[in-house]
Amino acid sequence: MNKKDRPIGVFDSGIGGLTVLKEIIKELPDEGTIYLGDTARVPYGIRSPETVIRYSFENTRFLSSRDIKILVVACNTASSVSLDAIKNSIPIPVIGVIEPGAKAAVRATRNKKIGIIGTEATIKSGSYTRAIKAIDKDVEVFGLSCPLFVPLVEEGWTEGDVVTMITKRYLEGIKDKCIDTLVLGCTHYPLLKKVISSVIGEDVRLIDSAVEVAQEIKATLEIAGLKREQEEMPLREFYVTDSPERFIKVGERFFGQKIEHIEKIAVGG
Amino acid sequence: MNKKDRPIGVFDSGIGGLTVLKEIIKELPDEGTIYLGDTARVPYGIRSPETVIRYSFENTRFLSSRDIKILVVACNTASSVSLDAIKNSIPIPVIGVIEPGAKAAVRATRNKKIGIIGTEATIKSGSYTRAIKAIDKDVEVFGLSCPLFVPLVEEGWTEGDVVTMITKRYLEGIKDKCIDTLVLGCTHYPLLKKVISSVIGEDVRLIDSAVEVAQEIKATLEIAGLKREQEEMPLREFYVTDSPERFIKVGERFFGQKIEHIEKIAVGG
Repeated sequence: MNKKDRPIGVFDSGIGGLTVLKEIIKELPDEGTIYLGDTARVPYGIRSPETVIRYSFENTRFLSSRDIKILVVACNTASSVSLDAIKNSIPIPVIGVIEPGAKAAVRATRNKKIGIIGTEATIKSGSYTRAIKAIDKDVEVFGLSCPLFVPLVEEGWTEGDVVTMITKRYLEGIKDKCIDTLVLGCTHYPLLKKVISSVIGEDVRLIDSAVEVAQEIKATLEIAGLKREQEEMPLREFYVTDSPERFIKVGERFFGQKIEHIEKIAVGG
Repeated sequence: MNKKDRPIGVFDSGIGGLTVLKEIIKELPDEGTIYLGDTARVPYGIRSPETVIRYSFENTRFLSSRDIKILVVACNTASSVSLDAIKNSIPIPVIGVIEPGAKAAVRATRNKKIGIIGTEATIKSGSYTRAIKAIDKDVEVFGLSCPLFVPLVEEGWTEGDVVTMITKRYLEGIKDKCIDTLVLGCTHYPLLKKVISSVIGEDVRLIDSAVEVAQEIKATLEIAGLKREQEEMPLREFYVTDSPERFIKVGERFFGQKIEHIEKIAVGG
């Protein structure tokens, strides 16, 4: 296949990356996409860096075998701990979600105080702090893990008393830092935007990396001369490591459209 | 090694089975134990039966290789979907957590209306309903999945407003069934006993299978003539599939004592 016509490969620990895929398709509707959700081993956010790196490698190996032209690591946890290792392991461009989010946050902040919320593993890795400080070392960064947000979103509880109360309890730890920008450092969190905004205050800018990631992919493809030029319908394939049933049911809320052409495969174990 | 002196093997998807191990050690303090928590792939409750069966086989293979005399599947999800398959695969007694819990519930009910709460996979499998109906077909069984209970307990939020509100929202679906007995069909739930009892009403009997499981193991060892008779300190070993750090930190709340002699191993993938 002509290199330009190859699809974009995207992996995530499960369904969260569908919020990123959605933006990619919106921004680059003519590009083919192959999405892999490692649903047999989700969530990554509670696991050790070694385990996340092993899983990320196995996902990368699967997508590489599908002849992709660019790899998107659409998971904050995997991007936080394994992006450099993945970049060194394959000869195509690799895009994570941390750097685009960090750039957008630095652009948005006025008072140079940025909050980051994410999984335990993402926050512990310090990846956002490093990425932000690399752009502007004077920015203060406050990280906070919110472990219940992922299960809440997966349960479909994205508004109402319970989620508001939990959000208040978590964000309490960051409210007195006078941040003016808050990075939603987990692909599940955009579904909680409304309640997060109402709790932290509407004057705090929320950064959802998905839009930035799509822009970064577009720029990378343009620079490398890799934009697809075919007129036929682009490829839309989904792979999961557990049965597709739950992925489709929960995932369509994230993706905002029907999920078709889906298959269960084995990666690694 | 003399067959009697071999340890009891226990596996769970993660840390929940420590509530069962705790009861086993209380009931059978002279028996050695090897505990395996599949922390690299926890939680099982959101996965398909095929995946849970595969993981259970891999855990069983590891424990079998450690020369155990009896296997305890201390995870409701794994017991629900894979117990028969495991029983057929190894030549030693295998004890799950469903049947002991079902027996205790049938003994406890007066009005023959029993509620079961558990993970999505456990409730969907219908395992408790089958086990209860096999003892007394006239009992009415009401199953209800409570997906947020496991992450709540792991976060350490076992009392207070948030957990009470979530418990109310879940148990609403079972409150008008006039049950007099409620099975805590997940090894994490005993840590929520207080709030569950206050929401469902103190006249509803809560069944925690751990105590029943320990009794069943004791009876099985006695009947088979397999009780340990050595006087030295019994073996206490722990294995996990992800880094031990988080297991120790969260697990000691479940186990109620220090977790030592722990090692990370690989099972299956």
